Amino acid sequence: VAELGFDSDAAEKGGYEHFMLKEIHEQPESLANAIRGRLDFNLGTSVLSGMGTSARDLSEIQRVVFLGCGTSLHAGLVGEYAFEDLADIHAEVQQAAEFRYRNPIISRSDLVVAISQSGETADTLAAVREANQKGAFVMGLCNVVGSTIARETGRGIYLHAGPEISVASTKAFTCQVAVMLMMALKLGRGRRFSREEGLKLAREIERIPELVERTIQQSDKIEKIAARYAEHEHAFFIGRGYLYPVALEGALKLKEISYIHAEGYHAAELKHGPIALLQKGTPVIALANDIAGKDKTLGNVEECRARGARILGVITEGDKEAAEFMDDFIEVPACHPLVATIPTAVALQLLSYHIARARGCEIDQPRNLAKSVTVE
Amino acid sequence: VAELGFDSDAAEKGGYEHFMLKEIHEQPESLANAIRGRLDFNLGTSVLSGMGTSARDLSEIQRVVFLGCGTSLHAGLVGEYAFEDLADIHAEVQQAAEFRYRNPIISRSDLVVAISQSGETADTLAAVREANQKGAFVMGLCNVVGSTIARETGRGIYLHAGPEISVASTKAFTCQVAVMLMMALKLGRGRRFSREEGLKLAREIERIPELVERTIQQSDKIEKIAARYAEHEHAFFIGRGYLYPVALEGALKLKEISYIHAEGYHAAELKHGPIALLQKGTPVIALANDIAGKDKTLGNVEECRARGARILGVITEGDKEAAEFMDDFIEVPACHPLVATIPTAVALQLLSYHIARARGCEIDQPRNLAKSVTVE
Repeated sequence: VAELGFDSDAAEKGGYEHFMLKEIHEQPESLANAIRGRLDFNLGTSVLSGMGTSARDLSEIQRVVFLGCGTSLHAGLVGEYAFEDLADIHAEVQQAAEFRYRNPIISRSDLVVAISQSGETADTLAAVREANQKGAFVMGLCNVVGSTIARETGRGIYLHAGPEISVASTKAFTCQVAVMLMMALKLGRGRRFSREEGLKLAREIERIPELVERTIQQSDKIEKIAARYAEHEHAFFIGRGYLYPVALEGALKLKEISYIHAEGYHAAELKHGPIALLQKGTPVIALANDIAGKDKTLGNVEECRARGARILGVITEGDKEAAEFMDDFIEVPACHPLVATIPTAVALQLLSYHIARARGCEIDQPRNLAKSVTVE
Repeated sequence: VAELGFDSDAAEKGGYEHFMLKEIHEQPESLANAIRGRLDFNLGTSVLSGMGTSARDLSEIQRVVFLGCGTSLHAGLVGEYAFEDLADIHAEVQQAAEFRYRNPIISRSDLVVAISQSGETADTLAAVREANQKGAFVMGLCNVVGSTIARETGRGIYLHAGPEISVASTKAFTCQVAVMLMMALKLGRGRRFSREEGLKLAREIERIPELVERTIQQSDKIEKIAARYAEHEHAFFIGRGYLYPVALEGALKLKEISYIHAEGYHAAELKHGPIALLQKGTPVIALANDIAGKDKTLGNVEECRARGARILGVITEGDKEAAEFMDDFIEVPACHPLVATIPTAVALQLLSYHIARARGCEIDQPRNLAKSVTVE
């Protein structure tokens, strides 16, 4: 028997040290797949036949409820902002386990969107069944084709992100957000959005793979920065507005794979309590992209600095003003403020990865965690 | 000049070592003041003239939005559950700073309730002004009479909790929750609640001061338990349903005064990430009162134990089944599940106080924190 000239495990990882790193690097392609054929540059809208409803049906929707757990819950929170701001429709995100046990107030004019990479998350599946009982429009946002949630919702949109092996979700999160932006665009066009506005947003969504590619190119720089934050046992991630869910997700990612007690906070909430924990050198990761709320976030950064915290900023490329506030910073390309959530999340994925690697953690199989939580 | 026979500072503290402890002990009286004259045992409802609207006006309300920051935000989350479950009305809580910057979707049929102990919280005040612009019913829930939010909302309900000096809020939180339960009762009676059901809840609300008194009597026992948790730098608080906001508040309290990195989590979310942080001896404070969701929470407790966590349970008096799951436990009296949030919060206040004292912390003036956050 001839020896194969390569380690089959390494081959699966495509030369990357971990599945997580491979999947981070796959994102430009995954996102291109998630977006391909779904933007209509003629009408300035998106084409999502999986939503399975006519513009007339969609116009009946009065509220959108996103359901998810963990990373999918954070994606749903981006969805909440996107739907309220783009489509002018009430939107909220609910923890799937709460929804199923709460006898939720749901009517036939509610659109319920269940978010689950695997399509098998037990709490989310049970929530879907509850929403079906209440007669809502129910949709799935899954990655795994033919999964239980995809089947039971009847309608939905697949992410096309490709298989996600790493326990810590990366490409599924960014594809979930990209698909939700396209959904919000479609609903927005059925409401107050003009063709011109729709077109503008569609063009920004089309740029996502390239924006992410440019962020990934900074991996080496992020690795150097990560070395300065790897020795701490606590960290805070702060953001406002669209970047608040990204702060939550950034903290969860770091927690999952590096075992640092990272916590995401709304920037305005810091001084209502958690600022008490800041000491000399405590890492604060501040999402201060150049979008609405930046000035306020920079004000909060100043408060943290005054307590001796070490600030790592994520800022918009070339924003010298914001850079001044930071001990270290990572730049992401300028883009539409909702679209900016995606490259920003990618920057934080790389940060978590490099910190965990510097700490010698398992990364692909963090202790105590399973890829899909199929029990309650 | 004759020497006064006592230290004036000690006199203000009424013999207690700290204002926080004094204020914890004042709660039976504060709550009695918050409730007095506000329950109608004839009609099985509450009398809250400060709401300033007739039953006919109230029937127009289609959604309730609670606004707050920090502890008030957590109180608002209890309000969200109470209004949905008792009054069958859509309710949600929003971080005040987000509300003011988000161009929120608010209509004339929305009731906006601004929660602020001081009535001067900058972000909450700005959110009130925004809600006023949108033509909503706007109400204040303040403790300080004549404060800016109380004046600008025009209508509202005072807590009557008495002055709160300690930076860490205690009696304001429990009085906020008590008042919101009475508000939900009133709205519930205008909707699906029968006189009989209303009466039952009113009788349970009337018991609150006594339930809290019985919880406070366990202060010495809680002090002994606290000694076992004082040496750790991390802690997780978990709860479900009505107890989820209490878990968040319990974690915030511990964080504020003991500088332990405590984080509140929905019990079902633990295994979607943060369970990775559990190691041998990591404290997990599990709110496992005998109300809906207890079995699921006990299941999550088992998962934490399997990872070596040390579990401190808050359980219902005499619940031997739940006690079996815990390394230590604090008992609170059996009562209505929504009412149970109040004695449970009191038990956690005492726990935080005793842990902080064992660690030699400042308690009344934690580092970096101000009593009222009057800047953004």
